[in-house]
Amino acid sequence: MTTSNKRVAVLSPVAWRTPPQQYGAWETVASNITEGLVARGWDVTLFASADSVTRARLHAVVDRGYEEDRTLDAKVSEYLHISEVFEHAAEFDLIHSNYDFMPLTYSRLVSIPVLTTIHGFSSTNIMPIYQKYRDGYFVSVSDSDRAAGLNYLATVYNGIDLSLYPLQEHGGDDLVFLGRIHPDKGVHLAIEVAKLSGMRLIIAGIIQDEIYFQQQVKPHLDGNNIVYVGPVNVAGKNELFARAQALLHLNTIPERFGLVLVEANAAGVPVIAMDLGSCREVIKDNQTGFLVNNVTEAVRAAGRISEIDRAMCRSRVRQHFSIDTMVEGYERVYSTIFDLEAKRLS
Amino acid sequence: MTTSNKRVAVLSPVAWRTPPQQYGAWETVASNITEGLVARGWDVTLFASADSVTRARLHAVVDRGYEEDRTLDAKVSEYLHISEVFEHAAEFDLIHSNYDFMPLTYSRLVSIPVLTTIHGFSSTNIMPIYQKYRDGYFVSVSDSDRAAGLNYLATVYNGIDLSLYPLQEHGGDDLVFLGRIHPDKGVHLAIEVAKLSGMRLIIAGIIQDEIYFQQQVKPHLDGNNIVYVGPVNVAGKNELFARAQALLHLNTIPERFGLVLVEANAAGVPVIAMDLGSCREVIKDNQTGFLVNNVTEAVRAAGRISEIDRAMCRSRVRQHFSIDTMVEGYERVYSTIFDLEAKRLS
Repeated sequence: MTTSNKRVAVLSPVAWRTPPQQYGAWETVASNITEGLVARGWDVTLFASADSVTRARLHAVVDRGYEEDRTLDAKVSEYLHISEVFEHAAEFDLIHSNYDFMPLTYSRLVSIPVLTTIHGFSSTNIMPIYQKYRDGYFVSVSDSDRAAGLNYLATVYNGIDLSLYPLQEHGGDDLVFLGRIHPDKGVHLAIEVAKLSGMRLIIAGIIQDEIYFQQQVKPHLDGNNIVYVGPVNVAGKNELFARAQALLHLNTIPERFGLVLVEANAAGVPVIAMDLGSCREVIKDNQTGFLVNNVTEAVRAAGRISEIDRAMCRSRVRQHFSIDTMVEGYERVYSTIFDLEAKRLS
Repeated sequence: MTTSNKRVAVLSPVAWRTPPQQYGAWETVASNITEGLVARGWDVTLFASADSVTRARLHAVVDRGYEEDRTLDAKVSEYLHISEVFEHAAEFDLIHSNYDFMPLTYSRLVSIPVLTTIHGFSSTNIMPIYQKYRDGYFVSVSDSDRAAGLNYLATVYNGIDLSLYPLQEHGGDDLVFLGRIHPDKGVHLAIEVAKLSGMRLIIAGIIQDEIYFQQQVKPHLDGNNIVYVGPVNVAGKNELFARAQALLHLNTIPERFGLVLVEANAAGVPVIAMDLGSCREVIKDNQTGFLVNNVTEAVRAAGRISEIDRAMCRSRVRQHFSIDTMVEGYERVYSTIFDLEAKRLS
């Protein structure tokens, strides 16, 4: 089939700018999908905050991300932004939602198909909505992060722009933690591993759980061996990757995808990841890092980092987690949807 | 025109049951509209929580009010509930929304008209949504609670079921405060008036601002002259009205409508109300109570309660704030909408 005449609306969240300046995983992926589709000749309109940056057509009704401008009301921004794409449904052949469960509640009011990439189930409370709309079109971002009964068309792994994360051929001596400061992400376990292995740990990311930070992170910060540098942008991540011997990702709950694992691997940084959720889909044990089950195994893995071929880390990302690979995956999904819709209407 | 063949969907909030067992002003009014329409022969479907009680057809997708069952997620309930009525739009000739600004964002996705009764503007943050949908159909609940630029068809005062609040011919000696324990409602001013006038004050209502209650209400409670009895249902309100010399309603921000003023008046209880917002539309100064501007004037008014004719209070409610009067108002609005829609389509 030819897809060049199809018009796609990509709906990004409006918590942050698309792409985000720092944190904002869903906006990052929505941006990568959008730019990847444009690069491959698709007619794409990105629905995102007005300060977003894209080569696609930008359609915006909220000025800035509500997380970046506290004078904005999250609920109001959300309702205004989501309804806007559905009010313009007649201008598109497909709405590709990257914005959680809310857009599903508008999906039956338009005649064009709506594809939802589920970037994560934020709570069990939202399941009644997925159950109601389970016959819609869904994509999971890993095989592990799936809910029973939904009409999944495929798993499409998130893809990154490899040019943003150049290979750091040699890396440095430090361990790096990159992610939200939240118990889910196991910052406390990373600290334990660093102390037991006698290595320096650099911690970067937004503080999402202030009490956790105060009680389980801050007391260990010594300005030398355990250091917190705050949130970092792409340049900051590359600085960390340049001095990283390995990335520590000791998540305490199943990982949905783990974009930072891919970014680290792209830069040639091996990843020591907890074997929970999607980590075993993203990291190939003994090849691009180590999958572990506890702190003891993580310490042992930290002693084996030199066994990992840094170039191999990057080449695996290029193969499985590049924007091109992702967009090819979505093109197959779009094609399936257009075929199904054509049959439904014939 | 004949309206008997028109099918109306009344959308109630799902914070509480419709009608609510205790607090829940919007659900109360939505219920009164629904039951009033049914009594006058309309074909009405009420969209409300599944435990709601109505003589109309009940359509429910959430089991209970999210304020009554904390295992329910407010956001999820709201999206599920609101979208449901729009997904069933083809079954109706009109959707009458009593649920804030959110339903407006679905209104352009259906072909039937949507009437929104604005029971209150919860914050200035929501104004961009009203501005976007300003050409919709709106009803204000008082002349004073209007935003500029919206397409208001009428003010329709809230109506109550007078049979729920029988006339208390003589009343008692106490002052009564009935409402949310929140600075907006001036509980602290009511306490001041009670102390200055040497009268007992009974305070009833849900605690919406716990810090306010702890700091400005609780220290004054003495179990005798200033008493807090918690939230009350209809029976509880009548017990209070039976012992009330007057209701004190010293709101500190403009009142939107003030359902409790009408309920008190229905029971023959005069109201001393701050002259802010809709109070002067609901209370007729010197006839059904007193409009005041400060505590001093309220104390003076408390000394003049005997001048008020309690039967007159009730008869004014019957005339202006009964369910029948309200529903007649909405029938005129519906008729206007159906005429406008017929013209639009012809």
